[in-house]
Amino acid sequence: MPEANDRADEGPEIRRFSYRGLFDFSVAVLSRLGVPRVAAETTTNCLLHAELRGHASHGLVRLPVYSRRLQAGVVKADPLTAVVQDTGPLCRVDGDNGLGPVVGRFSMLEAIARAKQFGIGMASAFMSNHFGPAAFYTEMAMAERCIGIAASNAPPNMAPFGGRERFLGTNPLSVAVPAGKVPVVFDMASSVVARGNIILAAQRSEPIPEGWALDPDGNPTTDAKLGLLGAVLPFGGAKGSAISLLIDILSGVLSGASYGRHLNTLEDLQSVQNLGHFFAAIDVGRFMPAEEFLGRMDDLVSQLKSSPTAPGVREILAPGEIEAKKKGEIESTGVPIPENVVEQLAQLGSETGVSFEVAG
Amino acid sequence: MPEANDRADEGPEIRRFSYRGLFDFSVAVLSRLGVPRVAAETTTNCLLHAELRGHASHGLVRLPVYSRRLQAGVVKADPLTAVVQDTGPLCRVDGDNGLGPVVGRFSMLEAIARAKQFGIGMASAFMSNHFGPAAFYTEMAMAERCIGIAASNAPPNMAPFGGRERFLGTNPLSVAVPAGKVPVVFDMASSVVARGNIILAAQRSEPIPEGWALDPDGNPTTDAKLGLLGAVLPFGGAKGSAISLLIDILSGVLSGASYGRHLNTLEDLQSVQNLGHFFAAIDVGRFMPAEEFLGRMDDLVSQLKSSPTAPGVREILAPGEIEAKKKGEIESTGVPIPENVVEQLAQLGSETGVSFEVAG
Repeated sequence: MPEANDRADEGPEIRRFSYRGLFDFSVAVLSRLGVPRVAAETTTNCLLHAELRGHASHGLVRLPVYSRRLQAGVVKADPLTAVVQDTGPLCRVDGDNGLGPVVGRFSMLEAIARAKQFGIGMASAFMSNHFGPAAFYTEMAMAERCIGIAASNAPPNMAPFGGRERFLGTNPLSVAVPAGKVPVVFDMASSVVARGNIILAAQRSEPIPEGWALDPDGNPTTDAKLGLLGAVLPFGGAKGSAISLLIDILSGVLSGASYGRHLNTLEDLQSVQNLGHFFAAIDVGRFMPAEEFLGRMDDLVSQLKSSPTAPGVREILAPGEIEAKKKGEIESTGVPIPENVVEQLAQLGSETGVSFEVAG
Repeated sequence: MPEANDRADEGPEIRRFSYRGLFDFSVAVLSRLGVPRVAAETTTNCLLHAELRGHASHGLVRLPVYSRRLQAGVVKADPLTAVVQDTGPLCRVDGDNGLGPVVGRFSMLEAIARAKQFGIGMASAFMSNHFGPAAFYTEMAMAERCIGIAASNAPPNMAPFGGRERFLGTNPLSVAVPAGKVPVVFDMASSVVARGNIILAAQRSEPIPEGWALDPDGNPTTDAKLGLLGAVLPFGGAKGSAISLLIDILSGVLSGASYGRHLNTLEDLQSVQNLGHFFAAIDVGRFMPAEEFLGRMDDLVSQLKSSPTAPGVREILAPGEIEAKKKGEIESTGVPIPENVVEQLAQLGSETGVSFEVAG
């Protein structure tokens, strides 16, 4: 799902870096903070997964806050993440307050292994943290010829349908489905737009479209600054609001994690977040040969893409197609990082004794 | 999810009937058409499930078309619905072209039994038909202290995001979650509004809000008649469009049923539909005592409901709360059936040799 705020490759204040350079920098920083090598690589791959797909809002811009949380001791650098309950296809994972990508990857691998054995696998994780782009996990399942599903709760940011205060998280949901040609990779926040869009508009003193946010009194607003003080709105009205609530139930209530108003923000360096995640994998080769499933997907996607376009629309895109194109582009041109994020990363590097020059 | 077209209890042209009378009538009609007693009761309970919750669009108004399809031989009155593949937690159900509620109930019972054994159960059904309100199935799971999930594909009715022709179904999705006090029962079509709303507006020569439908050229329209000739729109823009596509994948592509443009309409009495459904159940008592889960749900719903309301909003409602209130109301006042539907049912009765007077 492309977000309008991912304008990292627009404007003049952009620098481009190699994947390898950024990877080495991020792994080095996390290692200095006590994160074991594999966990540092997982976390870095997860953030760069977003960068490669043009979703800078979930990319390296998060590394400083991940690092500050490790330094503050509200996230564990070397957790004992483990399966604590196991019914066969279903398991519950205690993240032991590790970095979200570490807990998330551990859990999705469990779900995939169970899907390969039982046809379906599910992992419910608690005591976790911000897990980055949800598609990072569903694409792991897709690579194993499974339908992957991943969701997470998040701290209150969004007014529920009919409400005016922040109560729901912009809880993300991703589903990835393998195909022979164009896979379907869906990844959305449950808000109309990412909050980053409103931050951007406020910085530029531009208005925002009605329907994005409420002011602090609960009235619709086009004033970005008032929107930031108020709450963002769920996509699709009552339906999106309910979907966000359901994600909190599947991720938080079911797993034993925190949920609803109990969830602390990423910026609160005093408190553990105890986020919950939901992961599932379904082996597509269980009911028919996997090749047949992939062929059926190709037929469906080709039907979709050959459907006549509305006036002014050039092409109907399958979910994930924009990101796939972007990935090809960024892999050849380098990863675009805005100058202000470069500064934050350089600052982080100097604090942890890693030169950002390695990324150059 | 309440639909604005469910105005069965507004206006003067309404008659009220007892649940028992309508039940007896519908069961008698289906029996005359060769449907075995239990299957006739299941189908009737399913349609009345919608009536009781104020969703007349999924209620007895469907009985005539179900009957015509049985008479035309494009739906089997007495199918051999069976599990044809079984991995333990996961199974595939061949509906053998039975009535949707019969195949649906069979499949959800399989999913629930598997959830009780394995923690999670899933049933993937093919060769099925229109299955009525999706919440009928998820509430079965909820009654067994499971989270229930049900979805179905449906014939093309909706333009995909960026498109102008009918390609996606208004594919329904329901999730029901047990709680100690107020359960969460979510049930939505993936269109902005049910097509019935547009039919109603066209009959009344009223305009429709922009965003509901496209005209046959793919332009947004407020003309209900043009909207009927064109296509309805998915809820939530690109996100809802993708969710509808995913429902088709989980229901149709995965199960081996028909999907996308291959799906025939309910009104086409020459062709089998071969719809697919997706059912899942998760036992909420597997990771913690069920009572603890119900208590956590009560806390979350109470947080939601005590969240401050937006200006002009009296109360924040949990998904399914409107329907629960409606049910109490209709159970005491009788089931409201509009006069034109009464006429259709009386006509159906006279064709099948069942007096509609039994419903009186």
